[in-house]
Amino acid sequence: MNRHRGRFITLEGGEGAGKSTQVDGLRRFLEQQGITVITTREPGGTPVAEAIRGLLLSTDHPAMHPDTELLLMFAARAEHLRTLILPALEAGTWVICDRFTDATYAYQGGGRGLDMGRIAVLENWVQGAVRPDLTLLLDMEVRAGLARARGRGEADRFEQETVAFFERVRGAYLERARLDLGRYRVIDAAQPVEAVAGALQAAVTPLLEGRTPT
Amino acid sequence: MNRHRGRFITLEGGEGAGKSTQVDGLRRFLEQQGITVITTREPGGTPVAEAIRGLLLSTDHPAMHPDTELLLMFAARAEHLRTLILPALEAGTWVICDRFTDATYAYQGGGRGLDMGRIAVLENWVQGAVRPDLTLLLDMEVRAGLARARGRGEADRFEQETVAFFERVRGAYLERARLDLGRYRVIDAAQPVEAVAGALQAAVTPLLEGRTPT
Repeated sequence: MNRHRGRFITLEGGEGAGKSTQVDGLRRFLEQQGITVITTREPGGTPVAEAIRGLLLSTDHPAMHPDTELLLMFAARAEHLRTLILPALEAGTWVICDRFTDATYAYQGGGRGLDMGRIAVLENWVQGAVRPDLTLLLDMEVRAGLARARGRGEADRFEQETVAFFERVRGAYLERARLDLGRYRVIDAAQPVEAVAGALQAAVTPLLEGRTPT
Repeated sequence: MNRHRGRFITLEGGEGAGKSTQVDGLRRFLEQQGITVITTREPGGTPVAEAIRGLLLSTDHPAMHPDTELLLMFAARAEHLRTLILPALEAGTWVICDRFTDATYAYQGGGRGLDMGRIAVLENWVQGAVRPDLTLLLDMEVRAGLARARGRGEADRFEQETVAFFERVRGAYLERARLDLGRYRVIDAAQPVEAVAGALQAAVTPLLEGRTPT
């Protein structure tokens, strides 16, 4: 592990898994350990990428072609990575990101059935060898997550998908976690919020032990 | 040449070469020959692609990363190709498009210096084997073209580039034409409008002779 740069941590999970709440809690925990942390999200995180996010989530474009959606996702990611995430990591800042490329494999690959190999071509084109140091997957049963998410109000273009779509998303996440146990930690997101927060803190602790004392 | 589909004709060229005027004239000429024709443009041509065009041409985002720009160009192209161009060609309609992938090689590759091989990866990802049947390059000296274009008013984000940038764009277009004489016709765009129109009509005539009588 590179000793002179920040750590790149991603939170993944389906609708209603509580990612937003946990991103904030994890940031505060790391700050208490004396670490400089920024939190961000995908798609988005910079002005250009947030403008692309607006296109992606808008219900004005229900019939967007799946290839278009995928290229827009990676356009937002290229901007986010080059102008925010990589400069922060180089400066020694840790980055917690709410969704990253695993979400593309899960939603566009698993959910929409796009070819995983075609996604990998774009991942390599945009990221080169850059991957998260740690990916925390907040996993829970689909219907329970949707019930939580829908309590929040209007559904965006992704949230309007069917339960079967979200089952495929969950399946793709779990399969990716199974194939890369070194990078993934699967957390039971149906637990009380405090228990989920504790599990996330336990998962990041090995990264803390590996860093150079400041 | 495929006898049962429309022909795909692209017009390319630098600023002020008169593409917009010539697209309309060429459409009228083909319609007089009894052909069903649509005209369109890149980036854009569909509601989603025009929204992406808005992001690309906006002067709100001067520092967009070149990789982001390239992915947005191909996102707009994927949408345009899948939802407008290919369905029209399949139905036997001819398509005249104001700029296509050659413009990406010229502007992002030649102009901005992006790696041509990286552009080719995205071209193949989006288009598979689809290429224009005929590409008409309206070529003229850079300063003369810019003088014409600037007479039209406010410059967008691309038009604000330097003369050196547009020299590289022109060089990349001419090099591509030199390497694929089967697909390209280079037209002297400094001629009077009527002479340019005549040259374009002469260039498309072999396509007319190849088609199935209706």
